[in-house]
Amino acid sequence: MALLVTGWVALDDIETPFEKREAVLGGSATAAAVAAALFTDVRLLAAVGPDFPDEQREVLRQTGIDLAGLATVEGRTSRWGGRYQYDMNIRDTIYTELGVSDGWRAEFPVGWERSTTAFLAAGDPVLQRELLGRLDRPLATMVDTIRLYIDNAREELDATFAAADFVCLNDGEAREIAGTPSVATATRQLLSLGIRGAAVKLGEYGAVFASREDYFAAAGYPLEVVVDPTGAGDAFAGAFMGYIDAAADIRPETLRRATVYGCTVASYAVEGFGPERLLGLTRDDVERRYREIRSLTIVGTGD
Amino acid sequence: MALLVTGWVALDDIETPFEKREAVLGGSATAAAVAAALFTDVRLLAAVGPDFPDEQREVLRQTGIDLAGLATVEGRTSRWGGRYQYDMNIRDTIYTELGVSDGWRAEFPVGWERSTTAFLAAGDPVLQRELLGRLDRPLATMVDTIRLYIDNAREELDATFAAADFVCLNDGEAREIAGTPSVATATRQLLSLGIRGAAVKLGEYGAVFASREDYFAAAGYPLEVVVDPTGAGDAFAGAFMGYIDAAADIRPETLRRATVYGCTVASYAVEGFGPERLLGLTRDDVERRYREIRSLTIVGTGD
Repeated sequence: MALLVTGWVALDDIETPFEKREAVLGGSATAAAVAAALFTDVRLLAAVGPDFPDEQREVLRQTGIDLAGLATVEGRTSRWGGRYQYDMNIRDTIYTELGVSDGWRAEFPVGWERSTTAFLAAGDPVLQRELLGRLDRPLATMVDTIRLYIDNAREELDATFAAADFVCLNDGEAREIAGTPSVATATRQLLSLGIRGAAVKLGEYGAVFASREDYFAAAGYPLEVVVDPTGAGDAFAGAFMGYIDAAADIRPETLRRATVYGCTVASYAVEGFGPERLLGLTRDDVERRYREIRSLTIVGTGD
Repeated sequence: MALLVTGWVALDDIETPFEKREAVLGGSATAAAVAAALFTDVRLLAAVGPDFPDEQREVLRQTGIDLAGLATVEGRTSRWGGRYQYDMNIRDTIYTELGVSDGWRAEFPVGWERSTTAFLAAGDPVLQRELLGRLDRPLATMVDTIRLYIDNAREELDATFAAADFVCLNDGEAREIAGTPSVATATRQLLSLGIRGAAVKLGEYGAVFASREDYFAAAGYPLEVVVDPTGAGDAFAGAFMGYIDAAADIRPETLRRATVYGCTVASYAVEGFGPERLLGLTRDDVERRYREIRSLTIVGTGD
């Protein structure tokens, strides 16, 4: 079993009210892959330029992620610059340079089309759908997107959603796609597009996972200190799919657990810049916080 | 045992994107009292003018609420006019006429100072504190407020919070009082004011209850149709305190249950204008949705 993760690998310049960091290991696929590697074997399918630092490649390698699909192609590694406001729920993108990730068509290393699961981080929905079509009967696939495609490629996006099993969105994106202020209503509308399940991330408040059979709410971990929110949503998705890949089933109970694992790893992700907090985590750390999050919603004995 | 509820009884003119209603039975104390009456004996301490319609008084009486403290005084009944945007999380207040509620000093009917619990809906924090001081060793008291007092009477408000056991706020108010974008941090700062417990309402996403010993998260009920959100927060508080009054204890497990009951009744409250949906509820309806909300967060067997 292995989870295929594809999307952008980037270098981020991040400014928070408290600190500024340059060329942090970033990109949606990076965050998801590092999170997923806590649970299962991960294959990273992405492109970087020759300027991608060896030490960052080594950081990824040490997590055990299979880098056979991390292609070095002519051009610049993707870069993203962002600044968080005092309310770190709000961020301003200063620049996005897609570089080598722009329009890159992935080549699968031998056997990767038989990956048991796949997470497609945000990217061109046409390329996402093409990639989904190359997978050989996966157990489950999840697709993420960003507002750029919601606003500008809605029909392609809907077709891609319908071709995947699960979608992963934040609450604002879900509301925008469904055209409703209610997340509960939005999830039902997403399901009507033919999606098997929708994970909607609620930031500090956790996440919900909705399918035709189930509606589950996971609490957010009550963190007091947020260092850098970048990549938290991708870490959620990576942990969700990594857990499913290891569990090798998609029963409702498994998807509920996956949602809590997603919230667990996302809460760790924001405790450091880029993936740095996740890199030092053990599975015991994950289990401990998982139980803490579970206990936040348990009423008590006899209930 | 009985819960004392005090605050405003009003007539509301409400406009939603779908409907407009005039002179709806409103006011924070009304919503809280009607919600609490689903759980325990309720005493309503409030003022109305001679213009308060007999049929509205009869509506309240039929819930079993003790109206010995509902004083008719010279002047106009409080009126509030509000309009909800398409996103019903956003409302514009068109007018507020406090009328007879302005500066009204409640007189306790005989024996009411020995009410076992009390909920003080939003009002002048000086009067709230004075009223708290007149209670004879209550089991638990809860205070609510509004932005007006957060902005203009912060010192009085802090003193009132410290004199109560619990406060009830929405997430925006909690963030503003604590000066932090994180609700988790905000609750800890509220506790540092000397408050025993803080219930923070998250709208569609449920509520959290934080004390020095506990942090609990209740899921919101995934409602698809919201008719009128007015009074949902007060219904939460009324149900929370009504449940505690009936349970006659404030152990962490009881407070966790109270939080879920608060979310349960608040979710019903928004299904009708003013308290109309609550008036037709049975305790069975409440128990059924309570179990539904509980099941939203339970992972499954063996967990």
